[in-house]
Amino acid sequence: MSYQDNNVFAKILRGELPCFKIYEDEHSLAFMDIMPQADGHALVIPKYPAETLAELPLDYAAPLLATVQKVMAAQKSLLKVEGIVLMQLNGTAAGQTVPHLHFHLIPTHLSELKRHGAEQGDMGHIKSQAVELAKLLTQ
Amino acid sequence: MSYQDNNVFAKILRGELPCFKIYEDEHSLAFMDIMPQADGHALVIPKYPAETLAELPLDYAAPLLATVQKVMAAQKSLLKVEGIVLMQLNGTAAGQTVPHLHFHLIPTHLSELKRHGAEQGDMGHIKSQAVELAKLLTQ
Repeated sequence: MSYQDNNVFAKILRGELPCFKIYEDEHSLAFMDIMPQADGHALVIPKYPAETLAELPLDYAAPLLATVQKVMAAQKSLLKVEGIVLMQLNGTAAGQTVPHLHFHLIPTHLSELKRHGAEQGDMGHIKSQAVELAKLLTQ
Repeated sequence: MSYQDNNVFAKILRGELPCFKIYEDEHSLAFMDIMPQADGHALVIPKYPAETLAELPLDYAAPLLATVQKVMAAQKSLLKVEGIVLMQLNGTAAGQTVPHLHFHLIPTHLSELKRHGAEQGDMGHIKSQAVELAKLLTQ
């Protein structure tokens, strides 16, 4: 398995494609999923060319966890929810659609989860949520 | 949110309840889910009293990732699968049933996932898989 750097998230990391960014630091980027499985669905990705969790160097674990924790806290605050589903698909055989490691943070109950990568959300709504989450993340 | 140490996984960590163990080290324990959402469904938990990912200290991230990577590799090898769904539920509002942080590692496609915590599997089969996975994990 070798990393293909022409995938959508690699292009977002290089600034070749836009995203609704909510947080960024040296090791990670967080942005909105435009095919949300619930309101406020965000993604966290490493700034490292890993296709799945198997290829992520261990020294990325702590910075990524820190970002995941920050984003989850912001989602809970903005959306007034208590539950967040974390999902991360390893390989097309698991349903992974973009071959760059990404963590789904979905503020909902597992039983309410909409289908993965199925339908584009309301882009205006997603954009305004990104602005609100980004504000919370820089406080 | 304060950790309740009478939950099933806390009891497993203290040796008060059995589990089909597949791997253990200083920071983590891995064992079979007895209500599998797919064949070979395993769990990885930290040896730390965190209810959700929000309470996990950052220095647990790398050792947990290391264990997750090892277990995923063993699952792929034993089950001859390419895809693994990682799922981690934060809070009862997300569907979390045991209030000790746990990562589900489920060797299947997302669309094939059985219901969470719904039905006990064949305990003889799960036990023999645990033995095989444990063997692969000590090689």
